[in-house]
Formats: sequence, structure tokens, C-alpha cells
Amino acid sequence: MTRAWNFGAGPAALPEAVLKQAADEMLEWHGAGMSVMEMSHRGKDFSGIIGQAEADLRELLKVPANYKILFMQGGAIAENAIVPMNLAGKNPKIDFVETGSWSTKSITEASRYADVHIAATSLNPKAPQGKYTRIPSVSDWHLRPDTAYLHLCGNETIDGVEYFAWPDLEALGAGHVPLVVDVSSHILSRPLDVAKFGLLYGGAQKNIGPAGLTLVIIREDLLDQAHPLCPSAFRYKTVAENASMFNTPPTYSIYIAGLVFQWLKAQGGLAEMERRNIAKAELLYQTLDRSDFYISHVERACRSRMNVPFFLADESRNDAFLAGAAERGLLQLKGHKSVGGMRASIYNAMPIEGVRALVDYLQDFEKTQA
Amino acid sequence: MTRAWNFGAGPAALPEAVLKQAADEMLEWHGAGMSVMEMSHRGKDFSGIIGQAEADLRELLKVPANYKILFMQGGAIAENAIVPMNLAGKNPKIDFVETGSWSTKSITEASRYADVHIAATSLNPKAPQGKYTRIPSVSDWHLRPDTAYLHLCGNETIDGVEYFAWPDLEALGAGHVPLVVDVSSHILSRPLDVAKFGLLYGGAQKNIGPAGLTLVIIREDLLDQAHPLCPSAFRYKTVAENASMFNTPPTYSIYIAGLVFQWLKAQGGLAEMERRNIAKAELLYQTLDRSDFYISHVERACRSRMNVPFFLADESRNDAFLAGAAERGLLQLKGHKSVGGMRASIYNAMPIEGVRALVDYLQDFEKTQA
Repeated sequence: MTRAWNFGAGPAALPEAVLKQAADEMLEWHGAGMSVMEMSHRGKDFSGIIGQAEADLRELLKVPANYKILFMQGGAIAENAIVPMNLAGKNPKIDFVETGSWSTKSITEASRYADVHIAATSLNPKAPQGKYTRIPSVSDWHLRPDTAYLHLCGNETIDGVEYFAWPDLEALGAGHVPLVVDVSSHILSRPLDVAKFGLLYGGAQKNIGPAGLTLVIIREDLLDQAHPLCPSAFRYKTVAENASMFNTPPTYSIYIAGLVFQWLKAQGGLAEMERRNIAKAELLYQTLDRSDFYISHVERACRSRMNVPFFLADESRNDAFLAGAAERGLLQLKGHKSVGGMRASIYNAMPIEGVRALVDYLQDFEKTQA
Repeated sequence: MTRAWNFGAGPAALPEAVLKQAADEMLEWHGAGMSVMEMSHRGKDFSGIIGQAEADLRELLKVPANYKILFMQGGAIAENAIVPMNLAGKNPKIDFVETGSWSTKSITEASRYADVHIAATSLNPKAPQGKYTRIPSVSDWHLRPDTAYLHLCGNETIDGVEYFAWPDLEALGAGHVPLVVDVSSHILSRPLDVAKFGLLYGGAQKNIGPAGLTLVIIREDLLDQAHPLCPSAFRYKTVAENASMFNTPPTYSIYIAGLVFQWLKAQGGLAEMERRNIAKAELLYQTLDRSDFYISHVERACRSRMNVPFFLADESRNDAFLAGAAERGLLQLKGHKSVGGMRASIYNAMPIEGVRALVDYLQDFEKTQA
């Protein structure tokens, strides 16, 4: 068996220790006589598993007591409808800041449920590459004071743009506006002050666990604002009141997420993950910046630590680059089809050794092409 | 390691051979350098996995070419909203036949999206036990000719009532009405003439795979009738056009389902499963009927082969019964809290040996209590 370095954007690499434990426990979990996959979601064993997962996540992110953690389904794309159906059901006005492909998708879907206002955008439609490369200066955001909430995408997985500072909505005269952030692709990569947010959500398949699990962290006072047509299974109040068991939750995915949370705690928690993620990202961006053989379009202040899109100056070399990478066991480096080029996703589960292997290859490939 | 006999209603027992293969392939799938959990859903490897799963399911159920198979999320409880949002969006009228707890849940949820009419019900509200024990005679169904569809629950997991013959809607003057059936808890337990139905749906966690995966089989002419507020991720037309990849599908659950489909084919397909399931159910019901120590309320013609609810005549013995069962490794026999008593779920993955162990225990327990 050979495990490759998997730079896929999601579903993405998981810690090998987590996979090993899952394999060991596949036929029988802790003397229960069955796999976690076969357990009743209402039984004592699974109650312990989901309870521990929630407690560990609360500890990792220091989630305040007035926030609920919901284990849901459908991923960020489903949440693009579920969030507006829940939070703008009584006041159908939503403000957005557009910083890339994912915020754009959120805007398109939300416009079916609410009057949508783009408070700011970084779109540069004429750019041949890198249509989104920055975060608009907060002083240029034009928020509606009566909006139901402000939506941001915390890390644009496709474009590689990440927020490292969160806006001070008080300073914009909008301290009352709940801040909603899609954190799918950078949750758990660093500490987060949850109290700044009304709602955080993310698909699990980047930094949490298997695809099919969605995490929602919501301030309790926002739970009960749903549109009458919001399906019960996706109504935050209903999900919260039933401790994520109104419908059968994706039990095995929650178990894997729980193993990831335990792994994160064993590594030293989110401060340590941030230290490692900074080191990995710096190593990679420094290599890309060293010559003009590789191009990174994103402004330095908002370069994502999780998803690093880059281009070869000579794109006719793309296929050779990818083929050579695969020979070294460096996989899933092709950029998203909507932007082209390359992308290295370096989530929590990617160790610095993997980034070193990529950096070595970047340098070697450049030499062979000289 | 000791695997118990798991009679849970869902998430339920899976074939041991499937779990073994999943454990073996957890760290690396077929030389791919990674786990199935870590693969891009758009990559070549996972495309092969989902393609094979769909092809095997088509073969097992002989799904006609004019039906789409959709891999979705949320389970049957989410579908209780998603089906009406998709099929009654343009004609908000739905007829139901009520035969137990699950059809009742479907009716309650659908009533938020459409004018709901109960064409027939078997509810016996005064019964102290077994409020639903039969299927109303089809000649007593009162269908509205202009209804968008007729909804049935094919097997009532909680009440143990199963359809073995499907209604002839032509004979009711309603041959044009699409028949929609929740097959969550008996799909793949026997052959099914898919062409009779407009739509079949089911949560995976009984006879298919892990919780978090939902299967929808839909006739193509029904794809495009959605309500404008149906979320894109749950819009059948969108899901079909994107081959279940509009949002990231629950990839690992689809992989496990695919292993289950291959296991079913290796066992001899659905005709063989039906033969085994009949044998298992007959053995269990015959034992329950042998004395009045155990009571099964359901009419013989519609006794479920998958979920066998029963009661001890003397319910003060319930705790002793369950404790003694657990000592023999017979687990999850407690009935659903809404009906009480006991329930043995004997899905495809439960071999006759497990039912024999249960039958032995039923007889031994009765003797010790004499």
C-alpha cells in the first residue's frame, strides 16, 4: 500500500491515523457487537459518539453556550438555500460580499428566496486569469441597515481568497446585522471567535470528514425565523430541538468527524494547526513567488492558506506538469475547471512533508523546462 | 471480535463481507493512493465507483431506461418535503393512503406544500396496541382524479405492515396518476416492477448502506414539476442533469451501497433475496403464532417480511426479555417508542442463522417464564 500526497480540494485527504482507527473499528466498535455504520442513531453507543464529537468541537472552537451545533446533510450547496429559508424567512433581504465562485453561487441561490444586495464585489470580469483576487476594503462595503444578514464566504476554495480579519460591523453602523459565513474550506484551520458570527456553516469534506455531513453553528436567537416552506428536516429550530436527530443523521460521517476532532486535539488544537498551516502556506507561496515560471494572482494579504491556485506562465506545459506530479505521487493538482491552471489544497491533514514534496517538484519541474 | 445479531430497524446490519472489504480498502482503494473518502467526486476513480453502483442497481431492480436514479441526501424524512416540492409544485394536490407511522409523517409534512387528501386509512385509533394492522382494500380507496400523485408507504417500518400487491390504478379510473412509494425499508428485498411507479424513494440505512444517502428512482417525465422555492440541491431535474453531482454527493456512502449491490448480485439477486426473506419471515411469524405468549397484531396478508413487531402478552416481562436477548447477542429488539413492545428487523443482511437464534430464544424465554 502506498498513500500518495493528495492535494484535492474536497473530498480531501484525511489524517492517516483517523483512517487506520476507522479500519480497525469497521467490523466492531468498542465491543458493541457491530460497526458504527450499523448502530441505531438513538442508541446509547451512538449517543456517546455524537455527544463526544459535539463536545470536542465545542472545545476546539470554544463555541459559546448560546450557540447550537447542528449536524446536517446536503453540503454548502444545499445550505445556499437552507440558510436563506431559515434566516430570511421573515425578512427576505440578504446582503452579500462577493469574493469568488462560492459567494457567487450563494448569491444566485439566495436570490430565489430573498431580495439580494451585493454590498461589495471584487469581481474583475476582464481578467483573463484570476477574476477574484482580493477582498474589497471594508470601508467600501455598502450594507443595507435592514438586511436580514450579511453573507461572506470565509475562504474561496476555487479562487484561493481567504479572510484573515473579520469586518467590524459596528464600525459600519451595522452591529445588529448577523454575520453569516461559509467556512466549508477553512473551518478548524485556525482559532475562530465564534461570538462574532450569527451563523457558520460548512460541508465536512475538506477539514472535517466525509462528504455528506454539513456542520452548522448558529446563535440561538436566530433559530426561529424560517420561511413556512422550509422543509422540517432543514429547519434549524427543528434540528436543534431534536439534537440533530429529527431525521436520521449521517451517523458514520459524524463518527469520522469525531475521530478528526480527537486527532486535532491530540495535535495541539487549533493554535497548533494554525502554526502548521502558516508554515505550509509560506513555504508553498515563497516557492511560487521565486520566479516568474509560476504565477499566483491573489493579493498577498488574502492568499488562502488552504487552497493555493497557481498557473504556469506557459500553459502549454500544464499536461506535462500534472503527469510529472502524478509520477511522484502528487495527486489532484489540477485547478477547478472554471478557472483552469493548478491548485494545491493543503488542509489540516496535509503534513509539511507533503508540501515539501510539492515544492521540490515545483523547483525540479521548472529546471527541466528551462 | 464478536459480531452480534443486530435486529435494529435502521441504521441496520450490513453484510459482514461488505464491512470487511471496506476495512481492507480504507487506507487505499485499488492502488489509487487514497481512501474512497478522500477522492474527488469528479475524478476518474469515483466516477467509476458511482457508475458501477448505478449500473448494478439498474440490473438488480431492472430499472427501465426512462427512469433516472438519483443519489441524494436527507433520508425519507427530508423526502417527505422534497417529493411534494418536486412533484406537486405545479398542481398542489396529493392523495395518500395511510397505513402507519411513516405514511402519517409523510402526510403531515406534505400538507405544508399541497392540499392533502387521505384516500384511505387503516388507522384504528382506539386500539391499545397495533393502531395500524392492515392495508385498506383498494376498492375502498377514494382517489381524486386530478391529484398530482398518489403516495404510499411500501413497508411501514414501525408498524410492520407491507404491501405485497400494488394497486391497479387503471381499475380505479386513475391510470394517469403517478404512484409514489416510500420503499426505504424494503427496497431490494424482492423484485419490483419499477415501471408501475412514478417515483420510488428510500433512505439507505436499512437495505442499502449507511445513513445519509437517499435513493430516488424517478420516471423522466416527472422531473420538471418543481415548486419555485425547491432548493436546487433537491430539485430532481437539476440533480438528474448533473448525474447526482450538483452538490458533492455522499461519496463514501455511495461506495458502501455499491459494495452492497455487488454482494446482492453475488448472492443471486433479488429473486434469491426474496426466497431467503420469505423463509426468514415465515420462521419468525410461525414461532410467534405458536402460542399466545407472543402477540403479532398485523393481518397475515400484509405482515412485513422486513420488520416484525410483536408484543409479550405480559408486558411486565419486557425488560427481562430484552436483557436475556442481549445476553445471547440478540441486539436492538426493543420496539419503536411510539408503539412499544418488541421489533425484529430482518433485512437482507440478516442471515437465517440470526433468525434461528432469535426463534430459539423466543421459545426458551417462553419456557423459563412458564
